[in-house]
Amino acid sequence: MPVETADDLSIAYTPGVAGPCQAIAEQPARARDLTLTHNSVAIVSDGSAVLGLGNIGALASIPVMEGKALLFKEFANIDGWPICLDTQDAEKIIETVRLIAPVFGGVNLEDISAPRCFQIEDALQDLGIPVFHDDQHGTAIVLLAAFLNAARALGRDPTAMRVVINGAGSAGSAIAKLLRCVNFDPQICQPVKDIVICDSKGAIHRNRNDLNTYKKSLLTYTNQKDRSGTLAEVIRGADVFIGVSRGGLLNAADVATMAKDPVILAMANPVPEIMPDEARKGGAAVIGTGRSDFPNQVNNVLVFPGIFRGALDAGADRITPAMKLAAAHCLADTVASPDPTHILPPALDRTVARGSRLRCLRPRPERGNDTATNQESIHQRFVRDSTYNWSIAGS
Amino acid sequence: MPVETADDLSIAYTPGVAGPCQAIAEQPARARDLTLTHNSVAIVSDGSAVLGLGNIGALASIPVMEGKALLFKEFANIDGWPICLDTQDAEKIIETVRLIAPVFGGVNLEDISAPRCFQIEDALQDLGIPVFHDDQHGTAIVLLAAFLNAARALGRDPTAMRVVINGAGSAGSAIAKLLRCVNFDPQICQPVKDIVICDSKGAIHRNRNDLNTYKKSLLTYTNQKDRSGTLAEVIRGADVFIGVSRGGLLNAADVATMAKDPVILAMANPVPEIMPDEARKGGAAVIGTGRSDFPNQVNNVLVFPGIFRGALDAGADRITPAMKLAAAHCLADTVASPDPTHILPPALDRTVARGSRLRCLRPRPERGNDTATNQESIHQRFVRDSTYNWSIAGS
Repeated sequence: MPVETADDLSIAYTPGVAGPCQAIAEQPARARDLTLTHNSVAIVSDGSAVLGLGNIGALASIPVMEGKALLFKEFANIDGWPICLDTQDAEKIIETVRLIAPVFGGVNLEDISAPRCFQIEDALQDLGIPVFHDDQHGTAIVLLAAFLNAARALGRDPTAMRVVINGAGSAGSAIAKLLRCVNFDPQICQPVKDIVICDSKGAIHRNRNDLNTYKKSLLTYTNQKDRSGTLAEVIRGADVFIGVSRGGLLNAADVATMAKDPVILAMANPVPEIMPDEARKGGAAVIGTGRSDFPNQVNNVLVFPGIFRGALDAGADRITPAMKLAAAHCLADTVASPDPTHILPPALDRTVARGSRLRCLRPRPERGNDTATNQESIHQRFVRDSTYNWSIAGS
Repeated sequence: MPVETADDLSIAYTPGVAGPCQAIAEQPARARDLTLTHNSVAIVSDGSAVLGLGNIGALASIPVMEGKALLFKEFANIDGWPICLDTQDAEKIIETVRLIAPVFGGVNLEDISAPRCFQIEDALQDLGIPVFHDDQHGTAIVLLAAFLNAARALGRDPTAMRVVINGAGSAGSAIAKLLRCVNFDPQICQPVKDIVICDSKGAIHRNRNDLNTYKKSLLTYTNQKDRSGTLAEVIRGADVFIGVSRGGLLNAADVATMAKDPVILAMANPVPEIMPDEARKGGAAVIGTGRSDFPNQVNNVLVFPGIFRGALDAGADRITPAMKLAAAHCLADTVASPDPTHILPPALDRTVARGSRLRCLRPRPERGNDTATNQESIHQRFVRDSTYNWSIAGS
C-alpha cells in the first residue's frame, strides 16, 4: 500500500498496526492470513556448493540466491528472500533457520554441500513449514518427469529400464531415492528395479573398501546386483544414463555399448556429460540436458516455483514424498504426447507454472479446507489423489 | 528484471550468474555493487517490547516490522525485510544477526526490550554494516530536532533549559545521552546542563536504593544536582517535559508549576502523557506529541528512512554519534523559521525524506570516494561537516 496521508501512516504503522499484532498474539495461526508469511520463502545457503564453483562462501553465493528469488517471483509470485549464512556448521545453520522461521512460509535450502545438506534438511522437517533442498528434490522431480516421458515416448515400462546415475552427491542420491520409491507408500510408487550410482571411481558397490558412511548408505537402495566397474564399463547394456556430475565424460562409443535406443539425461551445466550430437551418433533415442539451446531442457525451474506455490497455498507443513511424486507426474502429464524431442514443457512456459503444474499440488477445495490445522488430511489427500503408478504412467 | 526468454534465464540463473559469484569470491567488497546488499536492511525484532503491547513474541510482532518495511520503501526506497526471531536470548539474537548479515547492508533493531537492546546493539557494532536500534536513536534524533526548534521558536538557549524526561527505558536513556553529548566530541556537541530522568517511582537519583545496574548507569550522565521527588514534584520549575512513557500522567495544574513558557513533548502513543489542550491550559508554549492529528508530530519516521539511506549510500560501516547529531540538526534545519506550532516538517513530507534530510547524511563527493575501504574518512568527514553546535542552532 502507498503511504500518502496521515491516515495511511496510522494504519500501516502506529497505532493501526496494533490490531493485527493483538489478533496474532491471541491466535498465532492468524499470522498466516495477517502477515507476509503466507507468501514468503527463505532461500538459505551457506555457499558451500555453488553451481560448478564449489565452496565460495556466503557472500559470493548471493547472486545465485537473488536469481532464485527472481524465478520464484516470476514463475509463482512468491516473495523469496536470500539468506546467505556466515557459517558452514550444520548445527548453527539448523538453529539459525529455526530462529528466523517465524517470518517465512517455507525454506528453500540451496547450494549446501553433501552430507551436511541431508542432516540440515532432516533436522528441520518438524519446523511447521516446508523445508525443501532444491538441489536434491527439485532436480529429482524434474528428472523423474523427464524419465517417465522418455519411457512413454519410447513405449517402454520405466520400472524395467536399467538405470546408471553418474554423480553420488545430493542430486544423485535424491534421484535414486525417488526412482527407487524410498520412503514411499508402495500403493503409489513402483520402483525402478535396477539402479547403479557411480562416483568418480566408478560403480558404488558392496566390495569397495573406500566408501564413507554416506556412500555406503546409498547401497541400501541401489545396486542390488552389485555391479562393479568404471562408468564406461557399467553403462554397457544399460537403458538410461543420468548425469549429475561434470562435462565431457562420455563419447559416442560409450553410448553405443548401451542397450538399444538408450535414454541420455546429461545434466552437468554448462557442459553436459555428453553433448547431444555425440550422444545421437552413439544411438541415443532420447537426449536431455540442462541447456536451453537443445531440446529437452531438464531444469528444476520447472519444479521449485510450482511445488512451493502449491505448498504455500495448501498451508502444508512439509513437502512429503507423495507431494514430490505427485509433482513429477503432474509435470510429466503437462506434455500430452511425449516424443523423443519433447519430453518436458519449455522451462519458461508460464502457462505450465501457473496452470496445471500448480493445480495438481493444490488440495481439492471440496474435500476440505486449507488451514494449517488440517495438515494430516492434506497429506492424506495427496496420497489419495496420487493414483498414478509408473506402469500406468509409462503405458 | 523480467525473465521472458531462455537468454534472460541464463543470465539471471545458471550459467550467467556464475560471473558475479566469481567476482565476489575474488574480491568480497564487490558484493556491494553486485548484489542486493547495498539497499537491503534487516528489520530485526524478538517481539519483546512491541508498541504499547509489550512482550507479544516474534510472530505477533510481524505486522509492525512489515509496516516498518513499507515505510523504508516509501520514504527511502530501501528494501527492508522483517526478521522476527524465535528467541529472546540476547546471545542467540546477536549470533543470529551475525550469521544472516551477509545479505544485508544494515540492521534496524526494533521493539527489543531494555536492557537487552543495549547489549545486542553494542555487541554488533563491529559487524561492518550499520546496526541501529530505532527505538533508541530514531526517537532520540527526532526528539532532539524538535527540542532544538522549540528553543529556536522561543528564542532560548537549548543548553540552558532544564529538562525532565519521563520514561527510563531505551528511548529515555537514548534521549538523555544525545542531549548530554555522551560519547560525543565536545567540539561538535554542547550538552544540556540539567536533565533528570524519572521512572514510575519518580526522579532517578543517587539516594534511591531500589535501582538496578542499568538505572544506576543513567546517573553517570543525568541528575547532577540529585533532584528527588515524584514526576509532578520534579517538573516544578523545569523548562521542558519529554514523555516516553504512557498516557495521561500530567494535567494543566502540573504544567502550570513549570517555568514560564514551557515545552511539552509528550510522545506516548496513542494517548500522550498530556493532551495538547490540557497542556495549553497549563501555559505550555510549544506542544508536540506522537499523534498525526495535532501540530508538531514527533515521529521517528522522520529519521530512520533517511539515516539508513544516507548510511547505505555512503557505505558506512556504522552510524556514529556524529552522524546521529548531524541527522538531528539536518532535520531541524529543514524548518527554516520554526514557530510554536511548526517545529518539525510533516511526517509524510517526502520532499524532506528524499531531499535535504538525506543530503546532509551523504558525504560530499568532492572530498573523497564512497567505498567501504574509506570508512574512517567518511566518519571524519561527518565530524568535520558537523559545524553545528547548539548555541548556534538555538540562536
